[in-house]
Amino acid sequence: MEFKISRDFLAQIEQLVSENREQELYQLLNELHYADIAEIMGELDDADASYIFHILDSEKTAEILLELDEEVREKILRNLSPKEIAEELDELSTDDAADIIAELPAEVKEEVISEIQDVEHAKDIVDLLRYDEDTAGGLMGKELVRVNENWNVLTCVREMREQAANVQRVHSIYVIDDEDRLKGRLSLKDLLVTSTKTPISEVYIRKVDFVKVNTPGVEVARIMQRYDLEAIPVVDELGRLVGRITIDDIVDVIKEEADKDYQLAAGISQDVEADDSILDLTRARLPWLVLALLGGFISVKLLNGFSGAMNNHKELFFFTPLIAAMAGNVGVQSSAIIVQGLANNSISGSLWNRLIKEVLLSLLNGTILALILIIGSHLLLDMGYDVGITVSISLISVIIIASLIGTFVPILLNRFGIDPALATGPFITTSNDICGILIYFTIAKMILGF
Amino acid sequence: MEFKISRDFLAQIEQLVSENREQELYQLLNELHYADIAEIMGELDDADASYIFHILDSEKTAEILLELDEEVREKILRNLSPKEIAEELDELSTDDAADIIAELPAEVKEEVISEIQDVEHAKDIVDLLRYDEDTAGGLMGKELVRVNENWNVLTCVREMREQAANVQRVHSIYVIDDEDRLKGRLSLKDLLVTSTKTPISEVYIRKVDFVKVNTPGVEVARIMQRYDLEAIPVVDELGRLVGRITIDDIVDVIKEEADKDYQLAAGISQDVEADDSILDLTRARLPWLVLALLGGFISVKLLNGFSGAMNNHKELFFFTPLIAAMAGNVGVQSSAIIVQGLANNSISGSLWNRLIKEVLLSLLNGTILALILIIGSHLLLDMGYDVGITVSISLISVIIIASLIGTFVPILLNRFGIDPALATGPFITTSNDICGILIYFTIAKMILGF
Repeated sequence: MEFKISRDFLAQIEQLVSENREQELYQLLNELHYADIAEIMGELDDADASYIFHILDSEKTAEILLELDEEVREKILRNLSPKEIAEELDELSTDDAADIIAELPAEVKEEVISEIQDVEHAKDIVDLLRYDEDTAGGLMGKELVRVNENWNVLTCVREMREQAANVQRVHSIYVIDDEDRLKGRLSLKDLLVTSTKTPISEVYIRKVDFVKVNTPGVEVARIMQRYDLEAIPVVDELGRLVGRITIDDIVDVIKEEADKDYQLAAGISQDVEADDSILDLTRARLPWLVLALLGGFISVKLLNGFSGAMNNHKELFFFTPLIAAMAGNVGVQSSAIIVQGLANNSISGSLWNRLIKEVLLSLLNGTILALILIIGSHLLLDMGYDVGITVSISLISVIIIASLIGTFVPILLNRFGIDPALATGPFITTSNDICGILIYFTIAKMILGF
Repeated sequence: MEFKISRDFLAQIEQLVSENREQELYQLLNELHYADIAEIMGELDDADASYIFHILDSEKTAEILLELDEEVREKILRNLSPKEIAEELDELSTDDAADIIAELPAEVKEEVISEIQDVEHAKDIVDLLRYDEDTAGGLMGKELVRVNENWNVLTCVREMREQAANVQRVHSIYVIDDEDRLKGRLSLKDLLVTSTKTPISEVYIRKVDFVKVNTPGVEVARIMQRYDLEAIPVVDELGRLVGRITIDDIVDVIKEEADKDYQLAAGISQDVEADDSILDLTRARLPWLVLALLGGFISVKLLNGFSGAMNNHKELFFFTPLIAAMAGNVGVQSSAIIVQGLANNSISGSLWNRLIKEVLLSLLNGTILALILIIGSHLLLDMGYDVGITVSISLISVIIIASLIGTFVPILLNRFGIDPALATGPFITTSNDICGILIYFTIAKMILGF
């Protein structure tokens, strides 16, 4: 079912563009889904992409605009007049149109809005621009079907048909009172199977989930996922129905949030892709590497401080990467579980219980690993039992501390309102490397005395 | 909007259960959403959870069953007779019912199916059990509204009302021919605004996205996301319409896939949560730690082999954790970007171009880090420039190799049909630790000669 862009196909398009064969290009592309055309445009050079954009119908180009990568979209929009941009926006739903306007340079924004033909549409868009993009207000669209609780089914169906013309897909019919306050909902199905004279107040469901305009987007995602909702109405501070959020917008929020957590855990700080420029990739990756390097300086300093051990127990230095690696891995495991638990709202119980659990878990894991280490260092590495036992005791201690750091740093950050995902990846591995080495040599010094 | 379970509320429920106050419990819980009740049951002990389950209406308990954690569900089901289970399944949609049956012990399955009252429902469920749960067939439900292309709008509306009684939400009306083959779709809206005598063949949209029963679930998720679909029809090998998948099922697939990738990148190999038992957590975490430990053995062996450097250049050993950490971090960054790119299908261009890009990127990052290292090791660590330069040259080489390993191991795994996410996290950090140390000391030996 899915369309795959082949090199041949791209070459064919480039050929047609260079020969100005508009007719054939139109026929070839008009068959495709806008998401596919957007991907094709992303692969072409700017001039070719712009050329294609201009020969397609505005119904299609509006949706293509939405799907394009931000940089490509910016370039396309730069070549369009405010009037042309407004024409595209006329084709889009209010939330999508508002998202595109928000990206425009300030001086163009007003002009574009004033060129939008449909005044109601323009008003709705301006209204949406007020909200922060990460809140329910920023996610919602104004397209919805609303009926008054005092109407009957017949009036309702008539009104609905009219309203539905502007709504791409009717998820629910929301019931409001004379003050526009959300009172409940009706399903299209209920309406189809009810006699036309029934008053709406007799058939509507008074229980309806909703969010407020300032509810954070991730919270909206959590609610819609938890309660299996395909759309949720949004109310303002006075409880008045002002918009609705549909599940497809939430799918994007869920995906973005997951991608962001994943990238933070891997030490990448911006939303980058494999195909981004080397400069963009460097900007996303280098800060974390510098952090790790500075952490590395501290470990060098620490090891230097323990250089007295070089004389009689130089083997100890062979184990530093092993200890650091174990500290890092354990820390990342613990922090990942906590970050995911916090994201899913599934962390229960007191901090104290969690502490005891982490210590027990680490003791169990640590003991098993220590046994493997003692046997392994004797058989495989041919080291004395004194070194093996010293390293093993250190290993268990390091694992306990590493798991505690991995568990409690994200919890602490979360309490202070900082994204706990920041504390995964390089942050945890670096701090655990340092703590691990410090603990290791301190214990070794106590046991072996150097 | 979201319900939060407080300790007080739980205590109140436990109190009511212990005093057998069914009436009050029913009133208290019946107000709540099934997802909330499922969470409450997860917090209670088994007997209390079972007690609550039995006093609620079967309409609610069926949905609760779905939302429960697998272990809790298993315990509840074990206390129900096949007839009672069948009653719950009668309330559920076919796909959800099939998921629950699939979890039952083999000997109970057949009995439960034979107890389902609605024979059509039972047939549909049995049909769904044939499919692998990770394919479109395993995700789809049989509830859909289908009309024949030879009908007119009136027949269609009449038929639809009948069929819609069994369908929770009508996403699309699918149009089929006399052989049940999927021909196109109709929107509910179109039907509302078309005259009743119009033949369906004149109004339906002949273009319809669909997937086959054996399309993998992640592929279905990709298609529905890419094309902004809220539902997609599923056809069998002969193109016959056999079911539909809705976006809420896909939201779960997306979430699970993202969670799995995140956990693999953190070195956790099963789907565990912070609140799982210590044994479950150990099972998920220990294998990766053992892998890291064995990798650590190799690094000990390597360092032992270079112990000749101890005499004149013992500072070199102070830098091993730094080199290993940089190799690990760079590798994880590279692999994360590739894994995400593969998951989003957004990796384009040849392997050769990617190789050149990674080398250039690493050279840029490496050079900046090397400069910081030379200056830092001199100013902060008071080391000679010869050590600083040796470590720096090694660092650049290590970063290049680490990023190449991080990039190409996932790509290779993917080519061989293995989940590339397996190659993130501990696997990459461990192999990069080893390669990093080997490269570092080899280069140091060449420059400093020991």
